[in-house]
Amino acid sequence: MTAPATLYELAGADPDLRFSPHCWKARMALAHKGVAVAGVPWRFTEKEAIAFSGQGLVPVLVADGETVSDSFRIAEYLETRYPDRPSLFGGETGRAIARFVNSWADTALVPAVAKLVVLDIYERLDPKDRDYFRATREKRFGMPLEQVVGDPAVRLSELRQALTPLRHMLQHQPFICGAAPAYADYCVFGMLMWARCVSPVETLAADDPVHGWRERLLDAYDGLARGARHCAPCGN
Amino acid sequence: MTAPATLYELAGADPDLRFSPHCWKARMALAHKGVAVAGVPWRFTEKEAIAFSGQGLVPVLVADGETVSDSFRIAEYLETRYPDRPSLFGGETGRAIARFVNSWADTALVPAVAKLVVLDIYERLDPKDRDYFRATREKRFGMPLEQVVGDPAVRLSELRQALTPLRHMLQHQPFICGAAPAYADYCVFGMLMWARCVSPVETLAADDPVHGWRERLLDAYDGLARGARHCAPCGN
Repeated sequence: MTAPATLYELAGADPDLRFSPHCWKARMALAHKGVAVAGVPWRFTEKEAIAFSGQGLVPVLVADGETVSDSFRIAEYLETRYPDRPSLFGGETGRAIARFVNSWADTALVPAVAKLVVLDIYERLDPKDRDYFRATREKRFGMPLEQVVGDPAVRLSELRQALTPLRHMLQHQPFICGAAPAYADYCVFGMLMWARCVSPVETLAADDPVHGWRERLLDAYDGLARGARHCAPCGN
Repeated sequence: MTAPATLYELAGADPDLRFSPHCWKARMALAHKGVAVAGVPWRFTEKEAIAFSGQGLVPVLVADGETVSDSFRIAEYLETRYPDRPSLFGGETGRAIARFVNSWADTALVPAVAKLVVLDIYERLDPKDRDYFRATREKRFGMPLEQVVGDPAVRLSELRQALTPLRHMLQHQPFICGAAPAYADYCVFGMLMWARCVSPVETLAADDPVHGWRERLLDAYDGLARGARHCAPCGN
């Protein structure tokens, strides 16, 4: 008998606020494969709680006696472990190109979302995480968090601009992976869930095709993502 | 008996200078499938020469009595026509994600390359194309071509910055499509061939992983792309 799968997920002061973009990628990949999982809230400073994974970041998946960290590796693990369930990659070429989409999300979207919501994150963190977060992020950006955000209207416009390639693609097909979503979609969707979870700002205009795409993913798997604790306005 | 395939390609005053990024995507896709093709030089203002295709842009492929325009559709046509030859997409999901990569190239790289090389293009065009090119591009950019380029060092830096997602991905694998190149690679490579063909500027630093990736694609198919007429410095 195997214990149910466990996913260590970044949480705020509210343990039900699970806002990490990379943890959302893992959550969606698990749902895609139909793998039931128990989420464990984890805070930035609880390094010892995941020391068994040999590194210090979440998501960490523990399943079938195996420990897997890094969201992309978790997706690869699930694809190998459950080859007969709906594919996350659609084959080797699809897996490789999904890696490009993941790199695009990490390099073009992570900074754009971070600059918009970094203060929202700070305010929602468990008090014990706040000094760590401020120190590491101010070092990364080279300025105080308040200065990173600056004019939120400008940051919002930059984020919408950064989504141009996705908007352009949506003229042709409903998901990055075609007729139905798969891992490359989750790589991007995780970024918008991050914003939705921590910030009251509506990141997308209602008539933006990216908004429609996000709606479809919020509805996926019985509304898994829509039902999650968040700060975005109702109806979004 | 079928006539050999024909590809209408944008050319400069020098009919052997074939510089269109989208035509390069088609060229590489044809080589990938091992389809021999005769290139026909075409200029922007020769709309009547490709009127049979029902539209006014190249590439236009004529093969097996069929006419196919639009580089992505040409790749889809080749994939369907030659299912037993090396795949351009690696399946339906790969095809869909390649569409995203193509959208990224069209929206993030086309403007970045265009701003750097638009005057180089103008100078290499057939004289009969020059007024058309200047008028349409100045309307598109909303300023004189000379102003679009502005400081070439800044444009070069912006292009290198725009390639960040590819650079990040190359930490994990040698090509966008994995161990070997396929259509998603050609979507991006076409953009760098465009610059190489028309401009003496070296777009990539020698120690940039993107440079190594471009080298591998220049060498592909017996150096098809490396042997093409170009303006970039020798050894690149």
